[in-house]
Amino acid sequence: MKKAIIGVVTVSDRASRGEYEDISGKAIIEYLKEVIKTPFEIEYRVIPDERDLIEKTLKELADKVGCSLILTTGGTGPAPRDVTPEATEAVCEKMLPGFGELMRQVSLKQVPTAILSRQTAGIRGSCLIVNLPGKPQSIKVCLDAVFPAIPYCIDLIGGAYIDTYEDKVKAFRPSKR
Amino acid sequence: MKKAIIGVVTVSDRASRGEYEDISGKAIIEYLKEVIKTPFEIEYRVIPDERDLIEKTLKELADKVGCSLILTTGGTGPAPRDVTPEATEAVCEKMLPGFGELMRQVSLKQVPTAILSRQTAGIRGSCLIVNLPGKPQSIKVCLDAVFPAIPYCIDLIGGAYIDTYEDKVKAFRPSKR
Amino acid sequence: MKKAIIGVVTVSDRASRGEYEDISGKAIIEYLKEVIKTPFEIEYRVIPDERDLIEKTLKELADKVGCSLILTTGGTGPAPRDVTPEATEAVCEKMLPGFGELMRQVSLKQVPTAILSRQTAGIRGSCLIVNLPGKPQSIKVCLDAVFPAIPYCIDLIGGAYIDTYEDKVKAFRPSKR
Repeated sequence: MKKAIIGVVTVSDRASRGEYEDISGKAIIEYLKEVIKTPFEIEYRVIPDERDLIEKTLKELADKVGCSLILTTGGTGPAPRDVTPEATEAVCEKMLPGFGELMRQVSLKQVPTAILSRQTAGIRGSCLIVNLPGKPQSIKVCLDAVFPAIPYCIDLIGGAYIDTYEDKVKAFRPSKR
Repeated sequence: MKKAIIGVVTVSDRASRGEYEDISGKAIIEYLKEVIKTPFEIEYRVIPDERDLIEKTLKELADKVGCSLILTTGGTGPAPRDVTPEATEAVCEKMLPGFGELMRQVSLKQVPTAILSRQTAGIRGSCLIVNLPGKPQSIKVCLDAVFPAIPYCIDLIGGAYIDTYEDKVKAFRPSKR
Repeated sequence: MKKAIIGVVTVSDRASRGEYEDISGKAIIEYLKEVIKTPFEIEYRVIPDERDLIEKTLKELADKVGCSLILTTGGTGPAPRDVTPEATEAVCEKMLPGFGELMRQVSLKQVPTAILSRQTAGIRGSCLIVNLPGKPQSIKVCLDAVFPAIPYCIDLIGGAYIDTYEDKVKAFRPSKR
């Protein structure tokens, strides 16, 4: 069985300059270790909010490193430096609007400013790219909502097989027609 | 009163090769017969997951056959051959994101993988085009959710008058301002 | 403290010809007076459903008049003359899909035809532009849903400071990380 490679990309000017610790990226890595039971390894990057660099990083992780899944954090708000969704859309062949819709919906139960998040998801080759929010407390809420659909999505695009601990996240694979 | 023409387009490589019966397209036709009380006829097509062919079929049904409504089934997932939403967007002048949002929302109550569906809807001339899911069991859930808005939408774009049996689907037409 | 300038743009062929009173634009102005407690002034326009003119008006209000917020009403449906979302998207650098999603969701509780609304929101420079529905009875429902996120959004893009009467609308500003 092919070992899954999962990219975790923190997009933050300040974290990339070392001005503060990247709590968000680390929260994602902790989450993955807790819910995934099949073998996987993580490729972790911390980069500034530069659209070109985000695109280059996503392409490299999908095409050269061979990631089946890339989770980004940061850069999804309305501020001028927030360009992660644009970079994501630019490198994807297909967009999956349902991810952003559901993540905003569950985040809205926490804060009314969830509608300001422009998070999205898309497919590049055999890699699913999902934008997560920047705030650590929102990351788990969003991952809990969308993760049950992620392993089957990766099956459909020919990525690595991923399975989860059912008591943490129940990965759903519909029966074949 | 102009008789409504409704296109039903099954997009499926396997069904178009006759490898299995098109249960989905037939489920849509059954649904229409059950809920619409005004006169209508159906134009039914089964085609492979080829973007050019989907676009050509949608254009022909809207422009030449004179459909007021086209319902597609299949090809809305994340797999490489799933291109129905792209073909739909390419032939529409206006997109109606609310259809996809609501269909994903009601489907989510059934399966967490509903967020993988990229279903959308749009307008081409006097024709409303709506992407339905490929799985027969999801088709009724989606149609029940969006059908109440369909007759009024077709009024607004100058299509044929459609009315429904109220005990099946209550078509909503707001009072004029 | 900079006084906020808020644009209210009614997009309606009939209202712009004086064929009926612009109840919708006036409902928005009443709402703003009721909920905003910081100083602000309103720039009010009534224009026909012409895409070029809508774009020109939005640009002028954002760039020359210096609006931090523009609320439009009308022109978001599926009819051929409904082009407000297209004009909005054409003048914005960034789109905020969460606004349209939430407004459709709350409107759906009132009428099933809410899915026909193509309302959206976006950012042009330091100005947030939000499309509201045309029907006066839907405007308050939509504003109540999205207004809590508006002042913080305007902070993030460098617009004027806006605060609200908490008993009417509770503006939410997350604590800085």
